[in-house]
Amino acid sequence: MTSTTDMQKRAAAACDFLDAHDKESIDRMVDWLRIPSIGADPAYDKQTRDAGQWALDRLLEVGLDARLRETAPAGGRGQPIAFAHKPAPAGAPHVLFYGHYDVQPPDPLDLWDNPPFEPTILPAVPDGPGERVVARGSCDDKGQTLMFLEALRAWKETAGDIPIGLTCIIEGEEESGSVNLERFVRENAKELKRADVCLISDTSMLGRGKPGITYGVRGMSYSEVTLHCADQDLHSGLWGGRAPNPISELTKILAQLWDKDRKVTLPGFYDSVLDITPEERAAWKALGFDQTAALKGIGLPPEADLGETGFSPIEREWARPTCDINGIYGGYQGAGAKTVIPAHATAKVSFRLVANQDPDKALDTFETWLQERTPPGCRMEFTRLSGGPPATVATDSPYLQAARRAVRAAADVDPALIKTGGSIPVVGLFKSILGLDTVLLGFGLDDDRIHSPNEKFEFDCFRAGCRSHAQLIGELAGMNM
Amino acid sequence: MTSTTDMQKRAAAACDFLDAHDKESIDRMVDWLRIPSIGADPAYDKQTRDAGQWALDRLLEVGLDARLRETAPAGGRGQPIAFAHKPAPAGAPHVLFYGHYDVQPPDPLDLWDNPPFEPTILPAVPDGPGERVVARGSCDDKGQTLMFLEALRAWKETAGDIPIGLTCIIEGEEESGSVNLERFVRENAKELKRADVCLISDTSMLGRGKPGITYGVRGMSYSEVTLHCADQDLHSGLWGGRAPNPISELTKILAQLWDKDRKVTLPGFYDSVLDITPEERAAWKALGFDQTAALKGIGLPPEADLGETGFSPIEREWARPTCDINGIYGGYQGAGAKTVIPAHATAKVSFRLVANQDPDKALDTFETWLQERTPPGCRMEFTRLSGGPPATVATDSPYLQAARRAVRAAADVDPALIKTGGSIPVVGLFKSILGLDTVLLGFGLDDDRIHSPNEKFEFDCFRAGCRSHAQLIGELAGMNM
Repeated sequence: MTSTTDMQKRAAAACDFLDAHDKESIDRMVDWLRIPSIGADPAYDKQTRDAGQWALDRLLEVGLDARLRETAPAGGRGQPIAFAHKPAPAGAPHVLFYGHYDVQPPDPLDLWDNPPFEPTILPAVPDGPGERVVARGSCDDKGQTLMFLEALRAWKETAGDIPIGLTCIIEGEEESGSVNLERFVRENAKELKRADVCLISDTSMLGRGKPGITYGVRGMSYSEVTLHCADQDLHSGLWGGRAPNPISELTKILAQLWDKDRKVTLPGFYDSVLDITPEERAAWKALGFDQTAALKGIGLPPEADLGETGFSPIEREWARPTCDINGIYGGYQGAGAKTVIPAHATAKVSFRLVANQDPDKALDTFETWLQERTPPGCRMEFTRLSGGPPATVATDSPYLQAARRAVRAAADVDPALIKTGGSIPVVGLFKSILGLDTVLLGFGLDDDRIHSPNEKFEFDCFRAGCRSHAQLIGELAGMNM
Repeated sequence: MTSTTDMQKRAAAACDFLDAHDKESIDRMVDWLRIPSIGADPAYDKQTRDAGQWALDRLLEVGLDARLRETAPAGGRGQPIAFAHKPAPAGAPHVLFYGHYDVQPPDPLDLWDNPPFEPTILPAVPDGPGERVVARGSCDDKGQTLMFLEALRAWKETAGDIPIGLTCIIEGEEESGSVNLERFVRENAKELKRADVCLISDTSMLGRGKPGITYGVRGMSYSEVTLHCADQDLHSGLWGGRAPNPISELTKILAQLWDKDRKVTLPGFYDSVLDITPEERAAWKALGFDQTAALKGIGLPPEADLGETGFSPIEREWARPTCDINGIYGGYQGAGAKTVIPAHATAKVSFRLVANQDPDKALDTFETWLQERTPPGCRMEFTRLSGGPPATVATDSPYLQAARRAVRAAADVDPALIKTGGSIPVVGLFKSILGLDTVLLGFGLDDDRIHSPNEKFEFDCFRAGCRSHAQLIGELAGMNM
């Protein structure tokens, strides 16, 4: 593949265009980031839709047949998909691109150095070269989605057309668990099955200057648990010792989720977990992941490396399931002392899953496990919030190999084959409903603070991503279908 | 003491006055309840002081030498004490009356049927006789404090003077742990030691129409615990399994506070706990306390009677120490799912103590216990919020016997000798610094929802309390010192 084909020339021209119009690309990113598309919060429904319209306008600008497609069930709430389509030229593959324009809630707001929807450009690292933009959604996922949109623009401007078939789904409900996407995909399965492969830009590189192609994601099951005791708040003097305290009781129950080796104690939880192969173990070790440096980056010393006994940090993130309490609240949370036994207490509990665990089965088991532990006379309320299956892609997939060549051409470095502990439920969805594998070509960094205050995206990453996607379009167009 | 003495005639006249001017007494109570004196919240500093001024005006109206006395340390925050004094007539005892004008925070506000500081008068029970006033502080402690103020007014109006020596301390920091009271009492110990006995109206009756004199209160130690892990919120996909989660870790630690018999596991916690005597056990059993009915009143079935193994409900409340988590918070608490591992998690943890446990020692032990369990590389922040020792009064005290006679004269029923699981730290304070016992003559009901939404005080209780205090003043004046 080192010979200079026509497609490679065109891809190089698209990359040159991206380099020359870099400032405009970044201006567009900042423009999109100004829209507070907090999809999970009904108070931001209008702004979320505005961010979808913004994506649609970009799809229309590159000549695609595009429109907003509603996802809400009859009478329900939902954010539209910015949907676009173009047929494949003869012999060229058809790509289903997926991205999302909604963002995580930005709280706690007081920990942001700038307002989360007033993008601020700062040095990439203090006193270092390069720049970053700090804003909610900068990396996850507006900035990364825009890399593909900019690659399309470059091809359109330089080659006059995009040389592959394309279906684009840019949704507004990813951070709300893509609650309406499964129905949308099922209802439009025939149309979507025209694609040969999916492409998603929502993952991270191995490190700064070290691009990666992600071939596995964890699945997730997210739930909310509320323990109800008395029908009113009680005085802890008069009732302490003779009425159940939902905070104390819920604490005692949730603490049983882990054993002393930090393994999850739910019955059968590990039954379908695939073992890490010796080859994977060796390959991951060779990546030289530095947990001490990673912990230092989040303000922790080396001894805070806590996780399941018997596995390395990267093995725990990439190939082992976990359970986390993501939120907890009950009783008095203000300043000072209030001697209350509250009526109820709530926790948000999620499980990260690996192949071949089933997200529904995990929540079924958890719900039963909770009911068995509910104190007499009290009531456990269980709500399933979101989830998706884990997924892996064969590392010898021709699409994945095309992506490797594209990154090499765009960034002059061979990308690492990596996994992520994060979840991209649509990967499993596209596999199970459409039978399609997904190429995960992302350019985030581990310290991009996605889902946290001061989320950022570095411009060097953005540029490498734009160029890699432009190259990938050429590589795919040059594939012999 | 059945012969009609002059003092008994005067007390009867004071009671007649109270009956005749009942409406004005209730109007005054409603007036006081309108002032949102949330002493713990700095945003209500002015209103809290206003409520203190209101109390002061009532003390001045009955001819006492009264003024607001500041409690704050130099440069610090504090609410003044409405302080009053009158010397004892020859041969008469001197009473130190204590009450408080600050109230608990009213949240959660959405569970109130009327705004907490817009007192609303409703039937005492649905379709039943009598009335109640619903407002924050109605029972705890403005309504109860006012019973004594009304008794003073009645004596002043009918006898022209109050026939005992009197020191009044009506403070504004009780719900904040009386943070400045100990220093005030120490600094004014000489002056306060003029008293022979303390009198407090901040407790409950055995039941509707069943007055009680409380001879024991539990102590309390209240703390706030924050576990700090990373210096930022983390994505639970990328970090779940390789960084400590402060909610999960704090949950696992706090769950160890109780064993399977619901005994507190802190080392040495029970070492100084006095056993319940066979006599007490028998007397309390004879009171016929109905736990099933009590649980029904808070919406729980009989099987929700959870507490320390081996003790009856009333024994657990009156004579056994307990530990409760009064508040907990960390991570995402909004609607829906957010896949975060937060930087820290916090719990408010209190212990109710019985004789002869030491509140400082309990917190010392707890702090050490927490540090021993802090995960490697993480940091446990421990804050002592408030506390006070447990206290009991000998049931053969002449002052307690005078209170028994007073209630009998006022309400035509022999009061029960009871304890409470609540804490009135000043009782221990007055005992340890001034050497004074306290008579606890309260007229609340267990279902008054103190510290909860829809706190109320029933007018029949209020009236019995006003009359009993008027009688008590006569009984004390008639004592042979």
